[in-house]
Amino acid sequence: MSPNQPSWSTEAWYVACTPDEIDGKPLGRTICAERMVFFRGNDGQAAAVEDFCPHRGAPLSLGFVRDGTLVCGYHGLEVGCDGRARSMPGQMVRNFPPIRAFAVIERYGFIWVWPGDRATADPTALRHQPWAEDPACAYGGGMFHIACDYRLMIDNLMDLTHETYVHASSIGQKEIDEASVATTTTEDEVITKRAMHGIQAPPFYRMVMRGLGLDEDMAVDRWQICRFSLPSSVMIDVGVAPAGHGGIDADPATKIASTVVDFITPETDGSHWYFWGMARYYAVDDPAMTDSIRAGQHKIFSEDLEMLQRQQDNLARYPERRLLKLNIDAGGVRSRMMIDRAISAERRRAASSVETAA
Amino acid sequence: MSPNQPSWSTEAWYVACTPDEIDGKPLGRTICAERMVFFRGNDGQAAAVEDFCPHRGAPLSLGFVRDGTLVCGYHGLEVGCDGRARSMPGQMVRNFPPIRAFAVIERYGFIWVWPGDRATADPTALRHQPWAEDPACAYGGGMFHIACDYRLMIDNLMDLTHETYVHASSIGQKEIDEASVATTTTEDEVITKRAMHGIQAPPFYRMVMRGLGLDEDMAVDRWQICRFSLPSSVMIDVGVAPAGHGGIDADPATKIASTVVDFITPETDGSHWYFWGMARYYAVDDPAMTDSIRAGQHKIFSEDLEMLQRQQDNLARYPERRLLKLNIDAGGVRSRMMIDRAISAERRRAASSVETAA
Amino acid sequence: MSPNQPSWSTEAWYVACTPDEIDGKPLGRTICAERMVFFRGNDGQAAAVEDFCPHRGAPLSLGFVRDGTLVCGYHGLEVGCDGRARSMPGQMVRNFPPIRAFAVIERYGFIWVWPGDRATADPTALRHQPWAEDPACAYGGGMFHIACDYRLMIDNLMDLTHETYVHASSIGQKEIDEASVATTTTEDEVITKRAMHGIQAPPFYRMVMRGLGLDEDMAVDRWQICRFSLPSSVMIDVGVAPAGHGGIDADPATKIASTVVDFITPETDGSHWYFWGMARYYAVDDPAMTDSIRAGQHKIFSEDLEMLQRQQDNLARYPERRLLKLNIDAGGVRSRMMIDRAISAERRRAASSVETAA
Repeated sequence: MSPNQPSWSTEAWYVACTPDEIDGKPLGRTICAERMVFFRGNDGQAAAVEDFCPHRGAPLSLGFVRDGTLVCGYHGLEVGCDGRARSMPGQMVRNFPPIRAFAVIERYGFIWVWPGDRATADPTALRHQPWAEDPACAYGGGMFHIACDYRLMIDNLMDLTHETYVHASSIGQKEIDEASVATTTTEDEVITKRAMHGIQAPPFYRMVMRGLGLDEDMAVDRWQICRFSLPSSVMIDVGVAPAGHGGIDADPATKIASTVVDFITPETDGSHWYFWGMARYYAVDDPAMTDSIRAGQHKIFSEDLEMLQRQQDNLARYPERRLLKLNIDAGGVRSRMMIDRAISAERRRAASSVETAA
Repeated sequence: MSPNQPSWSTEAWYVACTPDEIDGKPLGRTICAERMVFFRGNDGQAAAVEDFCPHRGAPLSLGFVRDGTLVCGYHGLEVGCDGRARSMPGQMVRNFPPIRAFAVIERYGFIWVWPGDRATADPTALRHQPWAEDPACAYGGGMFHIACDYRLMIDNLMDLTHETYVHASSIGQKEIDEASVATTTTEDEVITKRAMHGIQAPPFYRMVMRGLGLDEDMAVDRWQICRFSLPSSVMIDVGVAPAGHGGIDADPATKIASTVVDFITPETDGSHWYFWGMARYYAVDDPAMTDSIRAGQHKIFSEDLEMLQRQQDNLARYPERRLLKLNIDAGGVRSRMMIDRAISAERRRAASSVETAA
Repeated sequence: MSPNQPSWSTEAWYVACTPDEIDGKPLGRTICAERMVFFRGNDGQAAAVEDFCPHRGAPLSLGFVRDGTLVCGYHGLEVGCDGRARSMPGQMVRNFPPIRAFAVIERYGFIWVWPGDRATADPTALRHQPWAEDPACAYGGGMFHIACDYRLMIDNLMDLTHETYVHASSIGQKEIDEASVATTTTEDEVITKRAMHGIQAPPFYRMVMRGLGLDEDMAVDRWQICRFSLPSSVMIDVGVAPAGHGGIDADPATKIASTVVDFITPETDGSHWYFWGMARYYAVDDPAMTDSIRAGQHKIFSEDLEMLQRQQDNLARYPERRLLKLNIDAGGVRSRMMIDRAISAERRRAASSVETAA
């Protein structure tokens, strides 16, 4: 995990922030070890450049945005979305060295950034998020800064047996441990599936069932389908349906189905930004339900924080230890392999483009 | 003080915690640079294993104890007192690698741990603490975490001239500086002795004398006998008696005698756990006296904290400086020599056992 | 900026503290990477020695002063202004090793220290501060600890175009950016000059003008003359006068003239002590004006703190980056050159004295 061997792809789209975070002011944020500043350019489009004024190294994120250019708050140098100096009081800026500009896309309710060379940025590589465009779906979410390797979060989300222990009072139940898990790998996804039949719903779902006027004591079928995709998102289809009605395939009118949305963005080797949320396919016109689910998720994901950070601390203290790779870990293990392959491919491309240039 | 050359014995018994700290829940604590988790096994006996789950490296101290096994709070792996995995939901654990278990003894009101190889643990090496078993003795104490090398605390306790300066308002008085000090070494102790004759008692003793209905203004003889023993405890016999009645040898009915109890347990090279208390041979049935002495000691030992931590900081900043070794420092100097001899003997044993094995 | 190649002169006078900081008690402060303790000796003169007791390395600044000697708060060793042990309870101190004593001068309302060898200390090298002795001048000031290289503060003060951005609500105005700046170097000063004619006074001056019963809306001429001198002070002559009356050369009765006083003392490579104040030549008998100006300056200089500390952080993160050196940066650039020449001269003197000794 040295700077020369990053544990992440850089030629990929990562969630950097939400639109409200750059509302009227620049936002400084480190993504994949790059200090970036996000702001809106003069046509309102989201942009990102290095958070480093070429004049004296001040962080541009301490400045402000005027007419779509980023103004350094120290001596007034103005930078455009392309990283080039546009003007500076009393100065000819034509020959000022530009700072790096990063490719940015605003889509699906997020600002996405491509930390690698802007010339390699491929808009078509931004994975489609159907829930975000589905009128039959409502979304709510939040963000945490977590002091651990982003891959520990992927491990966490690809092995939901931890819910029984970490989230015992909300979504955990012993039946998760007992259900068999199946892990498969497709061209672009690692998928772990688990189904529980004829069980009592855990407390989180009982809350939802009460909210929907359902009998919270009825037997249900419950499912969890975790889908990792590059560079680092985990979409988890979860839900319950009255027992014997087909589970995830039950009539939409009878099932409580949603997708837990997880975008996991590396900050440094030992920290990441965790964008979490829930896209639900029920009660979509009920903002109180959105608030109550967001509050529930906030509480649940907060329970993971200490565990993940102390796990990171333990692994950093004993770097030579080999961990177990059980069947329940297959989701995380295969996701990391997919990441490693992407990093290797990126290196090969870089080496080959150097050769071509030579 | 590199990891390869620790400044402490590992084949020795250290106070790790008090029984209340593992009451119904595991306790994570680093002792001699080893991360350990303490808990009670299924027959109630105290146990310690590495605080590192063999599954994914989570700290086991974030878990819980069920039927005398330690359950990892992340994915439910269960570990016994011997460090072996006992079970895990959905898994065959027979071939899981064990984690280290440490030898533990509960005695004298403390949980003691042997940080070295469990095979070398010698229960008879746990030094007898007569005060802890004497019905004519009452005990009260507490614990501090202090950010300095544990040997600076030994120095502190083996040279009580600091009381005049650090504890001027409680147990310090100029007569300590003026009294001559004698340091001797026996087979297993370093002893410094000091006696003051016909003096006024300092404020701490005046409080005790008032509590006992004595005339706090009478002339007293005062004594201080500090006894260091391996691996790192300092027992200090202290007291006052009416002047001319024999000091420490006075009739128990007339003297105010107690033993200041100090167990000093290394955490890392630059920090330690300090278990302090007072075993007194007067007013033993008076819990209010216990509370008042504990509060007094808490205040007094707190006064050492900043001095010790800033001394550590200074020594770390100027590691090449030679310090003075005066007559008053002989207790600390000889205690460190005793520690060094123990470490060397430990190394010789390790080298010899390697040879034997070869 | 390694310890072997400091970024500062050591054979020079730096402001260490103000007299109130050593009023009745010692003060520990690191200056140019040396841990020093300041106190008053037995004739009341200010003194400084290493903050390291030769006995056991305790910081002497945790002790106290008695009859002009510094008493260690751990075991009572007494040190004189010359760094020699004077006495210690029960000890013969004649052969105790001395600690370093530093040359100190109290003058102009400050305690100054010469961090280099005391034998090289030259009292005549302490630069004259005429404002401090001028009865027509009143002074008020304060001090900040700032986590950045002291030279970033020099840059800041030698390029006042930052006022337009950092201090927009007090002393900044767009005319600063627009006015041309001239930088000159004399034998012992780097000077940057800027004058603005027929402008509206910025808010800070309007406050002062109101306080003096003047029309705050009248057109004024404003001037800023920054003077860097070794080792690291910046005196800034600033003021406004009714437009067309000669600016800085206007009749003292009509102009509002003062000198912003900045003494910048390195603490470590990445931090410094910033002594700031204002020496004014108007309303000198009005203590309420002193308070109000001090409060204003405190607020203004606080605005620089985050910028400077985040700039330091950015430069430390990207040490290889070349910064721009524009005309507005000439003051800082030339000041750093003057510092570098002083450091080189110091090294040559050191090398030559070694040769002479050989």
